[in-house]
Order: sequence, then structure tokens, then C-alpha cells
Amino acid sequence: MHEKEIIRKFFAPLANNKESYGLKNDAALINQNIVVSTDMMVEDYHFKKNDDPEKLAQKLIRINLSDLAAMGSKPYGYVLNIAIPHSELAWIKRFSDGLKKDSKKFKLKLFGGDLSKSKKIFLSLTIFGKKKGKVHSENKAEVASDIFVTGNIGDAAIGYNLLYNHKKINCSKSLKSYFTKKFLLPEPRIKFGQDLLGKVDFCTDVSDGLYEELLCVSENSNLQAVIFLDSIPFSIEAKEILKKNNKTKMLNIMLGGGEDYELLFSSSKRFNNSLKINKDYIKIGYFDKGNGVKFVDSNHENIPINIKSFSHF
Amino acid sequence: MHEKEIIRKFFAPLANNKESYGLKNDAALINQNIVVSTDMMVEDYHFKKNDDPEKLAQKLIRINLSDLAAMGSKPYGYVLNIAIPHSELAWIKRFSDGLKKDSKKFKLKLFGGDLSKSKKIFLSLTIFGKKKGKVHSENKAEVASDIFVTGNIGDAAIGYNLLYNHKKINCSKSLKSYFTKKFLLPEPRIKFGQDLLGKVDFCTDVSDGLYEELLCVSENSNLQAVIFLDSIPFSIEAKEILKKNNKTKMLNIMLGGGEDYELLFSSSKRFNNSLKINKDYIKIGYFDKGNGVKFVDSNHENIPINIKSFSHF
Repeated sequence: MHEKEIIRKFFAPLANNKESYGLKNDAALINQNIVVSTDMMVEDYHFKKNDDPEKLAQKLIRINLSDLAAMGSKPYGYVLNIAIPHSELAWIKRFSDGLKKDSKKFKLKLFGGDLSKSKKIFLSLTIFGKKKGKVHSENKAEVASDIFVTGNIGDAAIGYNLLYNHKKINCSKSLKSYFTKKFLLPEPRIKFGQDLLGKVDFCTDVSDGLYEELLCVSENSNLQAVIFLDSIPFSIEAKEILKKNNKTKMLNIMLGGGEDYELLFSSSKRFNNSLKINKDYIKIGYFDKGNGVKFVDSNHENIPINIKSFSHF
Repeated sequence: MHEKEIIRKFFAPLANNKESYGLKNDAALINQNIVVSTDMMVEDYHFKKNDDPEKLAQKLIRINLSDLAAMGSKPYGYVLNIAIPHSELAWIKRFSDGLKKDSKKFKLKLFGGDLSKSKKIFLSLTIFGKKKGKVHSENKAEVASDIFVTGNIGDAAIGYNLLYNHKKINCSKSLKSYFTKKFLLPEPRIKFGQDLLGKVDFCTDVSDGLYEELLCVSENSNLQAVIFLDSIPFSIEAKEILKKNNKTKMLNIMLGGGEDYELLFSSSKRFNNSLKINKDYIKIGYFDKGNGVKFVDSNHENIPINIKSFSHF
């Protein structure tokens, strides 16, 4: 059973309230003014014991911040749960250094938490944002709306695979450090999320991979996402990797893998003029009648490519 | 390094904000109206794989609710993180049944969450309450205030030790089921916490054991908690166990062990009249000048007993 099915079957029935948006949004809106999201990182699945604890703390904060960005809300604070072997004092110290750095950078307050013993490290953070007038409340698009992303897709997934050797990728040492940094230290698009309030159909972060996020929105909207494969922004570095490796395999990693934390949104024609002047918003396709995700070339010809979504569960 | 020291050294500096109460309270108060607390349960440390998932879900909700009770706030909702092996679908189903039961009982809404793979089960819940006019904001007492608890102390800690055989206790089978139930299904004192608003110096739940909680408040207040050992309410069942086992060992379990989830509070004389009419508030001592916790008999004579606090870290 896939993560989404489990949530739909066992947890959505408990979330029959307006705050949760049916568990289909990036975050909840409680008390009409506080945005809440939660995310965890588990040793051996999201990171390895030897990874730098300072960076892990920053990543934990940033993946949660990305959900606030996708809601267009302003960072406020967080609570934190850490389960860890008792001996790991140096780890905790360095982890708290990372928290300090990003708490300052993103103006976040620590509100509380819990510390427990465990054999493997388990990190859980719940983040709070303040509503700025409105929020991006539903991941639902309109027909004929254009689809945009805020930056390069796939770098983080390449970094993940290089770091943990999940899929063998042919890559030089200098490029490897570029990709792993993209994976370890994502940049939450807080300002973009706020700027887009009131201008878009929906806004979400690409945390589960571009393909999976498009699939979700298509399902929620009963529409088909038509994507110009050549319009998806890839970094110069990713393009180099694409040349040196099997293209289908690499596209699967880059479009199916997650952790990019760019924003994905769609906008109907009436808003496009104000969006077009911003070079940070890259148009990659549009919504049409139908369902699922279709990749096409610039002549709107179907490109047969089978992407498999990556899941942490 | 003890849990409290780690929090003081590495996390309190990040929590230099009014919302967190310096991490010394049962919960935070964010946006001036939402009470937030978070707690986790880790396989092998807080529970065993074979424990009934339905009861674990209820316990996870209730230990968090107890923090809302200690703040005097009204239950609102929660977000939930679960890390679990992929094969445990039946476990998840039964766990969600428990969530459903107690969400209904305590009028709690599920707002969101995250599901991840892991070898061992990790559960993390962040709970939200609404402020009812005011909250129990600081765990600080006044000199000469009387100390009260809302119910029996020690049953849950006996249950914990019986269930997981941490400390050998001589106990009949029928009594064992009484104690394990007390451990597995605590009753959060939500109504008491609300009733006490404005009438007490402080209010906290006895989640870390009576001794440890008294020690914390004494430290925060620069006072000594003087406790009449014979006034501490023990259940008939616990008294029977006390008779059949080494008394010092049992008192260490009952006063040093946690998970009772009764409320502990103190009240200055001016409020005592309104409290005395409530038979649910049991007076166990008072605060005096000095520091630490002192156990005395009814003649105020010192009872030399060395209690060691239990810690999950």
C-alpha cells in the first residue's frame, strides 16, 4: 500500500475538518491564523549517522519552512522532538549549532520539544507560520492555467543518489559536491510563496518530486498536466550529468525523486502578465482536460517516458 | 549529562522568547491564544512491539492532552508523525482505531502529519489547545503555599515495571492488570486544569514522577517542598504492593517513576477555602524556605529516603 492510500484510508477520516484541508495541502491552518506543518527525518532513511549534524538541523528546519513557503506564510517558530542514543552528546551540540544558525537566518523561535533515548536517531519538527492575509489553501488548478516552477529541478535527487549510492551515477568529484550541497541545504522559497498570494490557482513545494506533485494536483483538479519536457529548468551541472548517463534513468531520478523544495504553481491567463515579468517563474506547461501527467515536446507531441515516484515510505 | 542539563545548555538559548516560558513549562503559548505541546513514544523505550496499537494511540494522545490539562486549556487538535516498517499495515490500522476513539472522546481534530519508513516504530505528536482566558503559565510557587495532587501517585510506575519487568515486583495476576491499565490508559485531568485557572501558583502534570516535578518547581521557586509522606495518596492496590515488597524500593518506583498524569499544584492560603471543598484535591505538603524536596512524617520529622528520578533519556 502506498503512503497516499494509507493516509486516505486510515487518517483522512480523522481529519474531516476545515483546518486540515483533507490532508491534501502542504500545511494546516489552525485558529484561522496559524499555519502548521510537520516533518520528520529518520536515520538510515533520510540521512546517515555520519552526516554533519549541523547541516541535518538546517535541513530539518528548511524542509519544514518549505511547507510554510508553499502556504505563503511568515515563519514564526517550531517545536522539536529528538530521539537519540544517550552517548551522542557531541552530535546534539553540533545539531543545536545548526538549529541556532537557521533559527537566526529565518527568524524562527524554538517553543518546546522532547528528548528521548533510542538506538537510531529520529527527528521530528512541527513548524508554525503566521498567515499573511491569506494562504495558498488548496492544491487545485483550473483548466488552461499555465504551470510554473521557481527553479531548477532534479539537483537534490541527484545529490541524494550520489551521497548514498542508491543509484549509480557517473559524475565527477567536483560536480558531486555541487549536487550533495543542493540535497543537504535546500533553500525554502519563502518570499516567492508570499509574493504569489492571490495570484495563483495553487502553490505547493516540489518535496515529493515534480512528477508526484503534478500527479497530485491533476488528481485533485480532475485535469491533466501537460509538461514541455524541454522547458523544465535543469542546472548546467544536471545537463552535464544527463549527457554522461542514461537519459531515461536520469530523468527518472530528476523528475521522480524529491527534495527539490522549489515551488510549483499554476496561474490562469488573467494573472500571467504580472507573473511573466518575474524571471524566477519558469513556465513548464499547462493544465488541460484529462488526467495524469503528459510530457510533450515543443510541437505538443507526446514523449513516452515512464516516471516512477520516489517515496520515503 | 541529564536531560534537563542538555535542554538547559543546548536548547534553552534558542528558546529565549515569551512563548516558550524558557522550556520550563508543560507547554508553550503561541500567538497569545494557542497552547502547544509535543511528546513522542519510541519502540523499546516507551513501549514494546507487541503492545496493543490501539492503546498506544490512546496513550500518545493522552500524554499530550495531559500537558494541555496542566495549562488549563481546551483540547483543539493535533499533528502526528509516524515512522514504521513498511510491513506494519495491520498495526497502522489498529493504531488509527485508537486515534479515532480518543479523538472523539476528547473532541480532537487531526490537522496533518507525516509517514516514514523505519526499522523501529517512532511516534511523535504535537497537540494544540485553545486558551481559556488564561493559562497556568509558570511552574513557580510561593512560600507557605500548600501543595496538592489530583489523584493517586505511583500506580502507573508500578504498571510500567510489571509490564516490562524492569524491576522485579511481587504482585498477584489480578493486581497486575489493574496497574498495567493505569500505565497504558492514563486519564488526562483536563477539567481540573481548567477549574484551577486563577486559583493556584502553578499547575503541572506528574509525568516525570512526583519527586522530579516537585524538585523542578522547588528549583524554579528557590523554595523547599515539604511533603507529608503519609498524605501522598496511594491506591488500595498500591498499598497492598507496598506491604508485600521492600518499602524503599517501592517508594522509589512510585515517587521516582513517572507517567501518573495527575496534576500537581500549589495554592496560597487565600485560595485554599475554595479548594478545600473539592475532595479531588489532596493536600500533600507545603513550600518552605530552603531548597529541594523533604519528606516528613505528621510531626514534621524528617524521613530519610533517597528517591532517584526516572528519565526516558
